[in-house]
Amino acid sequence: MRKVEICFSPELIHLHSLQGKIVVVVDIFRATSTMISALANGITEIKTFADLEECRSMKSQGYLIAGERNGLTAPGFELGNSPVAYLNEAYSGKKLAMTTTNGTLAISKSAEADEVLIGAFPNLSATIQYLQGKEQDVLIHCAGWKGMFNLEDSLYAGALVKSLESSHEPSEDGALAMKALFEKEGHDLKGFLSKASHAKRLQNHNIESDIDFCLTLDLFSMIGKVENGTLTGSEI
Amino acid sequence: MRKVEICFSPELIHLHSLQGKIVVVVDIFRATSTMISALANGITEIKTFADLEECRSMKSQGYLIAGERNGLTAPGFELGNSPVAYLNEAYSGKKLAMTTTNGTLAISKSAEADEVLIGAFPNLSATIQYLQGKEQDVLIHCAGWKGMFNLEDSLYAGALVKSLESSHEPSEDGALAMKALFEKEGHDLKGFLSKASHAKRLQNHNIESDIDFCLTLDLFSMIGKVENGTLTGSEI
Repeated sequence: MRKVEICFSPELIHLHSLQGKIVVVVDIFRATSTMISALANGITEIKTFADLEECRSMKSQGYLIAGERNGLTAPGFELGNSPVAYLNEAYSGKKLAMTTTNGTLAISKSAEADEVLIGAFPNLSATIQYLQGKEQDVLIHCAGWKGMFNLEDSLYAGALVKSLESSHEPSEDGALAMKALFEKEGHDLKGFLSKASHAKRLQNHNIESDIDFCLTLDLFSMIGKVENGTLTGSEI
Repeated sequence: MRKVEICFSPELIHLHSLQGKIVVVVDIFRATSTMISALANGITEIKTFADLEECRSMKSQGYLIAGERNGLTAPGFELGNSPVAYLNEAYSGKKLAMTTTNGTLAISKSAEADEVLIGAFPNLSATIQYLQGKEQDVLIHCAGWKGMFNLEDSLYAGALVKSLESSHEPSEDGALAMKALFEKEGHDLKGFLSKASHAKRLQNHNIESDIDFCLTLDLFSMIGKVENGTLTGSEI
């Protein structure tokens, strides 16, 4: 059987071996949910940046620019980090440059893996189907919140471990714990996550529709994959 | 209401503020369980060491020396890391010098806190009673396994968060997650933990009786506290 493991924070990723594995990077509220929404709605490619200025400079190269800091649209950016902004193919055909608080770091720290996918609830089943068709072990890399464990990324990881149980077994304790937690709380993700620290922060920004979107399963039959620093989508 | 939070690894403790808090250090298999067993069975004080040689040198100062590396008694040491070795007041009246793989690091990285306690299932209720009598917020510092999340320390943390719910509320997501996990799995700790990576490692060392001891609740009405680098027990 193949293996599946979870890394709860980019600050712990150095303890894991990435070589020969497929890494799934997850930042549910909201970076990876937004990326999947954008790709499923016609954005042709996404480049991610840690630095605001570097991201902003991509506008001159024809990119739509999206920037968020601490949950709000960064000054001078066309878009923030809302996944619903891309619905109805609002920006179809465009290229996107994004910078976010936690997600970008997790992607850049995953580069040694065989493949890097972007995970979100709206394409959970597509990601599972893709992973089950591959030979490699899987590592779920949670972006976390400023280096700390967060509930929404960890529950997504638990959902993925649970869904992979016929093909991949947990190889460390984090995967066992989050599978059990998803079994208990997965029937009411929104209710459970409403207690989470990050969801509380987001509630202050009036983005109920974003939260609903980020917790909706299987809207899209598409995976997101990072290759040579660029993220693209593929129908599955 | 006071707050309670969990740090899952000494590698993440720099993300938490310790000042003004009581830290409970936990390394269930087996450092902190062994410390509580030793203190409850008449050991008068414990000093902990990261370095094997430094610990060994305490023998010349009249200390009993206990050393473990990767789950086994280190060469030249009188005792390893078995909590049952201290039962029936086998070493009552002695001072103990200990070095362990993960627990010592978590203790030394907790020094900025107002108070540092040692937590284990055999004195869970005593620790809760002590914490509820104090004004400070609580941080549970899991020793983990070589920097990674581990199930037994995290479940103890969940048990503590659950037991403190009338007086302390979770201030971050890890505490929420582990409270929920303990609610699901706490009725059969041994069954659930038998899947854990560390329990599997310990099974290879034929220490079933140690595992049983480490998962037994409330054998002792005593807390363990570190002050000026020395750990002592107090009846409560």
